[in-house]
Amino acid sequence: MRPETGGRSGPPRSGEFDSIFPSRENLPGVVSAMLQGLDQRQTVQHVCRYPLPSEETVVRVLKLISEILFPGYFGQRGFDRANLPFHIGELINTTYDLLADEIARCFVHERHRNGRADQSACYEDGRNEAFRFLQKLPALLDVLDGDVRAAYQGDPAATGYDEIIFCYPGFRAVMIHRLAHELHQQGVRWLPRIMTEYAHRITGIDIHPGAVIGRHFFIDHGTGVVIGETSAIGDNVRLYQGVTLGGYRFKTDEGGNLLRGYKRHPTIEDDVIIYSNASVLGPVTIGQGSVIGANVFLTRSLEPDTHVTIETPRYRMRQRNTQ
Amino acid sequence: MRPETGGRSGPPRSGEFDSIFPSRENLPGVVSAMLQGLDQRQTVQHVCRYPLPSEETVVRVLKLISEILFPGYFGQRGFDRANLPFHIGELINTTYDLLADEIARCFVHERHRNGRADQSACYEDGRNEAFRFLQKLPALLDVLDGDVRAAYQGDPAATGYDEIIFCYPGFRAVMIHRLAHELHQQGVRWLPRIMTEYAHRITGIDIHPGAVIGRHFFIDHGTGVVIGETSAIGDNVRLYQGVTLGGYRFKTDEGGNLLRGYKRHPTIEDDVIIYSNASVLGPVTIGQGSVIGANVFLTRSLEPDTHVTIETPRYRMRQRNTQ
Amino acid sequence: MRPETGGRSGPPRSGEFDSIFPSRENLPGVVSAMLQGLDQRQTVQHVCRYPLPSEETVVRVLKLISEILFPGYFGQRGFDRANLPFHIGELINTTYDLLADEIARCFVHERHRNGRADQSACYEDGRNEAFRFLQKLPALLDVLDGDVRAAYQGDPAATGYDEIIFCYPGFRAVMIHRLAHELHQQGVRWLPRIMTEYAHRITGIDIHPGAVIGRHFFIDHGTGVVIGETSAIGDNVRLYQGVTLGGYRFKTDEGGNLLRGYKRHPTIEDDVIIYSNASVLGPVTIGQGSVIGANVFLTRSLEPDTHVTIETPRYRMRQRNTQ
Repeated sequence: MRPETGGRSGPPRSGEFDSIFPSRENLPGVVSAMLQGLDQRQTVQHVCRYPLPSEETVVRVLKLISEILFPGYFGQRGFDRANLPFHIGELINTTYDLLADEIARCFVHERHRNGRADQSACYEDGRNEAFRFLQKLPALLDVLDGDVRAAYQGDPAATGYDEIIFCYPGFRAVMIHRLAHELHQQGVRWLPRIMTEYAHRITGIDIHPGAVIGRHFFIDHGTGVVIGETSAIGDNVRLYQGVTLGGYRFKTDEGGNLLRGYKRHPTIEDDVIIYSNASVLGPVTIGQGSVIGANVFLTRSLEPDTHVTIETPRYRMRQRNTQ
Repeated sequence: MRPETGGRSGPPRSGEFDSIFPSRENLPGVVSAMLQGLDQRQTVQHVCRYPLPSEETVVRVLKLISEILFPGYFGQRGFDRANLPFHIGELINTTYDLLADEIARCFVHERHRNGRADQSACYEDGRNEAFRFLQKLPALLDVLDGDVRAAYQGDPAATGYDEIIFCYPGFRAVMIHRLAHELHQQGVRWLPRIMTEYAHRITGIDIHPGAVIGRHFFIDHGTGVVIGETSAIGDNVRLYQGVTLGGYRFKTDEGGNLLRGYKRHPTIEDDVIIYSNASVLGPVTIGQGSVIGANVFLTRSLEPDTHVTIETPRYRMRQRNTQ
Repeated sequence: MRPETGGRSGPPRSGEFDSIFPSRENLPGVVSAMLQGLDQRQTVQHVCRYPLPSEETVVRVLKLISEILFPGYFGQRGFDRANLPFHIGELINTTYDLLADEIARCFVHERHRNGRADQSACYEDGRNEAFRFLQKLPALLDVLDGDVRAAYQGDPAATGYDEIIFCYPGFRAVMIHRLAHELHQQGVRWLPRIMTEYAHRITGIDIHPGAVIGRHFFIDHGTGVVIGETSAIGDNVRLYQGVTLGGYRFKTDEGGNLLRGYKRHPTIEDDVIIYSNASVLGPVTIGQGSVIGANVFLTRSLEPDTHVTIETPRYRMRQRNTQ
């Protein structure tokens, strides 16, 4: 499988550097071709002075916020009541600076595309939105505590609250969703989705920042869960790995282009449990207290307190002759 | 979609810094609200001098151990027989120090909650447990070699052992499980679960450290696999992506609280294959040599050498009129 | 649950260091046992002077290439037409150096195993293959633009092209696959698979570098998708989370060893949509314009323009007595 010696045409040339790096001298041609390609592309171009938001910074902001919400569990360790205020104060200030900047970048980008952006107005708005967001954190503490309790009450393998905060992916994904959802509600673009896709990457749980989720929410294991943009979930709901709350038969305009923004995902009322790998598709309503069994596939609504399981499937069983 | 200017009430105030950072001056109020919220929270509080275990360090320990087990494949490259002993010696010493400390932190935290921890006893126990753990590594070499072979024998796309060690997620998840399981057996809390949730994050494979897994084990592709706490798996077992070995109908006490610790996951005997997205739920036994087809959903036991596949499902087919 | 004090036999010895670090002095024994184990292992051994490829460097190369393909979106931010050529030039040169080295390491390893490697020939071949690869990047721009458009046209939740590039996991996995596939076609071993397993890790989407994928390809959500080595996918195909294009009943030789390299995965023709968690297994052909519904499990071919959905399953519904 020895590869052909490509990338060079004509007889070998002499020269010391040439013999050491036979194709390096041809790199400028690749650079030119690349620049030409970038210049001509049809979809996206971002060659201009203002910077776009940075995923790396967004992830850093999420880590700082988790330190603020759970001091001692994430980030620096070892506090007492005397030094905690300084630590929280420092974290909140740093988060504010980074987040304000990232939000401002989003405003600049959005307004540039719709005309001309007033940069200093964008940066002022960035600071205001970052502040509005940080003001909500204390109230989120209580909501997140409810999620921790829901995890403990829903998983017989959980040994205590600590374990849930240390490492439950379902808890992390929900925490990040709750943060992203607030920014989404404030009308900030890109950042909320970058946040939830980060959560998706580290947990396998894909929750659109637009989804509305009640209190006391728990996703166990979680890999493969998808919760679509217009889903609405009540209180005390529990989901397992592989559950999809998805769309079904997208609407298009006469030109065949997708319509966007209309309600196309399920509403899940309070006290519902949906077991592993079940799918609920379309703008249906699952009534309060219902239980949907593993692998069930539903595109219709359910009355409250309905239990749905798949019928025992008919399997082909066959006993192998033991040799 | 220009956001309202929130976070400030009353008329704009003058002042140079104010006009540059309009909401920064209000951050101390957010810090106070946050500190008050942290102080009042009901679930977890960790404002005290002793540090909790650190996920970052646990991940570093896992990386060091993989360098010890597969020198040349992970971490630093390029050894000969002369320098290998120094390298392995250094790695084992560093691992010992880091791991002893992390284990000690777990003992401190656990014993603090059950009364008062003798810190120096915790640190001594941490060193002892780290040592016990490291003593098991040479024996694990052989077990892991069996897993590498099982992967090669089970996947027609595998080109050799190297590829499996370089990048097979199933192999990584199983390696980390085997390490975590030993610590779990030693009675160390939190760390084993932090380890397996790290594996879950990078592979999509969620194996509880309590699960008992035999030799020659292979998970192909692996995303979405869940293996519950009380599962027991024999030798020469192979699983594919999306397989769940899960619980089914949790038991509760009279108060409605979950019972914990009892056997609630399957036992998979030797030489069983379970294909993609199949689920086996509850404390059932899958007999030796059985084969469970893709998408099968089982809540009952199988006799040895049973093959189960779903019946060819009845589909609604519809030929579209070709325009 | 205080652990037994293991790892030391005989009566405790005196000595200052001993009492501080009771088991540290025994670490040399662990190191010896480990070295002996490494020496005797049957599968893989890599104690020799030449270095193996490094996953870390491969990931760095992928990040550099994404900066080249989407300047301003990944990596450094803020360009104008004057500085872009320098930036792209620098990135291409760095990528060339790193990639040439990694490819060379693969050639050294491969040829060493088949006899004796001429190191300088390996390094020259590494440079040539890196150059050939880089020459393909400008053409890839156009293909990737098609993928971005396909994502926008296929997802009602997408707000624009930017969002897709910033954070759609399906787009990232496909971009990395297209890069890895080119190296795979050039006969470079290990690196392509390390690349696609990196994509798998960050997206949950597992595409073998050998799979052939047409233009305008979109995977939505994506967690759990598996696309096997010998799959062939046409233009304008769309897949959802959990879709498997997999093998079915592997062939073995008389010794029971797996046969490798033959066609064992599906061919998906142009304009096909496969919804969430559907599986298509074996070397079947799904005809142009077909639509496969969620959860469908297929091991047979489909004529063009066939729509397959599962029959409305018979569920056991049960109304709970509301307390």
